[in-house]
Amino acid sequence: MSAARVEPGCLTDVPGLRVGHTQRVGRGWRTGTTVVLLPDGATVGVDVRGGGPGTRETDLLHPSATIATAHAVCLTGGSAYGLAAAGGVMRFLEERGIGFSVGPGTHEVVPLVPAAVIFDLGRGGGFGNRPDESFGHRAARAARGTRSPVGSVGAGTGARTHGLQGGVGTASTVVHDGVVVSAIAVVNAAGSVIDRDTGLPWEPGSVPLRRPTATERAALRTHLDAAVPPLNTTIGVVATTAILRKAECGKFAAVAHDGLARAVRPVHSLLDGDTVFGVSTGRDAPSSTERVKWLNAVLEAGARCFAAACTDAVLHAVATGSDPAYRDLCPSAYPRGFLPGR
Amino acid sequence: MSAARVEPGCLTDVPGLRVGHTQRVGRGWRTGTTVVLLPDGATVGVDVRGGGPGTRETDLLHPSATIATAHAVCLTGGSAYGLAAAGGVMRFLEERGIGFSVGPGTHEVVPLVPAAVIFDLGRGGGFGNRPDESFGHRAARAARGTRSPVGSVGAGTGARTHGLQGGVGTASTVVHDGVVVSAIAVVNAAGSVIDRDTGLPWEPGSVPLRRPTATERAALRTHLDAAVPPLNTTIGVVATTAILRKAECGKFAAVAHDGLARAVRPVHSLLDGDTVFGVSTGRDAPSSTERVKWLNAVLEAGARCFAAACTDAVLHAVATGSDPAYRDLCPSAYPRGFLPGR
Repeated sequence: MSAARVEPGCLTDVPGLRVGHTQRVGRGWRTGTTVVLLPDGATVGVDVRGGGPGTRETDLLHPSATIATAHAVCLTGGSAYGLAAAGGVMRFLEERGIGFSVGPGTHEVVPLVPAAVIFDLGRGGGFGNRPDESFGHRAARAARGTRSPVGSVGAGTGARTHGLQGGVGTASTVVHDGVVVSAIAVVNAAGSVIDRDTGLPWEPGSVPLRRPTATERAALRTHLDAAVPPLNTTIGVVATTAILRKAECGKFAAVAHDGLARAVRPVHSLLDGDTVFGVSTGRDAPSSTERVKWLNAVLEAGARCFAAACTDAVLHAVATGSDPAYRDLCPSAYPRGFLPGR
Repeated sequence: MSAARVEPGCLTDVPGLRVGHTQRVGRGWRTGTTVVLLPDGATVGVDVRGGGPGTRETDLLHPSATIATAHAVCLTGGSAYGLAAAGGVMRFLEERGIGFSVGPGTHEVVPLVPAAVIFDLGRGGGFGNRPDESFGHRAARAARGTRSPVGSVGAGTGARTHGLQGGVGTASTVVHDGVVVSAIAVVNAAGSVIDRDTGLPWEPGSVPLRRPTATERAALRTHLDAAVPPLNTTIGVVATTAILRKAECGKFAAVAHDGLARAVRPVHSLLDGDTVFGVSTGRDAPSSTERVKWLNAVLEAGARCFAAACTDAVLHAVATGSDPAYRDLCPSAYPRGFLPGR
């Protein structure tokens, strides 16, 4: 199952999006920030499905709020403290005159930067070491429209998922009429991305895996069964070139949670902050007929990409702390040449 | 009408709440921050009714989110940039070990600090002069459980409402069984608190007003008719000693918006960020029978207090910039001795 459908590609396969990471590891640190820049603006919706969210500027994404355009999405470690990082993204955008215009001057703008956080406090040793405003600015400066690193980078640096190192994953696909759909996920889930029985992910990612050896599976099973889920969360973005209204971006995010539900089990628990943003750059027009069918294809592609991104986050993760990565426990599952020295 | 029902008192008539302000005026500045500290924690809900909100940590106030306790509410100028002030309130609380416990150490806490902003950018002359993290920390340090200043202080410093200086107002009342209900409002509304025809507020505040002179009414009318509503918002808190569940705190906030609707006309427009938080300290038990009737009394008292707080914000306002205060245009409406020199 795992090797059957592979989603290559990345979030920035939707033109107009840029992704940047920054992180700090060592000397008491193990956290970071990931920014999805929307320098031309894009329509953004959100669906908050976890029972313990940490968010900023999500109310303006509600369908009844007037402004439909946001200028970045900030995904960050640091729990609620990390929301400060969004201020650094705002500063980056303000310096470039990007934002909602509120005055005659070209720099009189308010950049709209919704944000969500994962809980990773203290994972590097220092409880007070968490992303601040400077992390957001740095991640925004690093943002590129080309493929960015995945695994244990940015907001995924201090991530863990059911005893394994978590991380950042990304994926993309093309729906029937050339519309591009993509996703990025920061997986810090209480639930597991890996099926303890098969030793393989529940959902396929971009790496064509083989079945791990019996010894590896046994060690993995022992490790997963002993995991004590701490405070956890999966956050991310699904994006598309399709023209979606803001309420439809919210629906797009909501259906992406279905991908999360397939890739991470269990999920959406009482203290998870699971939050997905839906982004439409609106570059491809839908056919005027059959809009519902067309839109359903976009939604399901978003769920598929988000699931693949979750899986990829774990497959690409490298241990940044005491939690082993999947690659450490099941190296034989990877194709020849994927892991260094194999 | 205006002098008929007077609501004296203030937000901190509900024990367990503390209010602090900080502001900066002059040299390009005209903005500030108001913090409502809940050092023992309190149940908090929210209702966002404006079409252009700027908020932080409101998703955790949703009835489906698990945690029902927040540790402060941050009301601030600075539009979305001002959300940084909430980080300073978090730091203040963390330094005192107040927050949601996330580890074995007494200081391993995440303070939950929902926040909402008003738009006052550039009103002091410098577009970049806006509350940052230090404003939140300073306002939290200043917080007291006794009556705090009203008018053009804290988040109300740069406020304007339909061409008049806006500000902060507060009120309280006691419902039939000794339950206390109180409110604080930061009035920065596009709509007017003052009826242009009578020259008096739509709703009573704590100041028993007389009808302004014909000359004053004419000048006021001319001024109000010429006002160009810029980006505006009214934000605030209603609080009660009654035991409310989180969803009921949301309902409490929602009905307080009815008080806002009575006091400010028009209101809840497409770019207002009108947001009210509902706080329950839960010190008084409801009678087990007739809970709905009892709860309705609490809700209506909240609406009444919030309306009075809005009116008081304008009656106590003192010009901090180019917008005249109501007292400047209609001094004869005030009781003898209320205004300095009269």
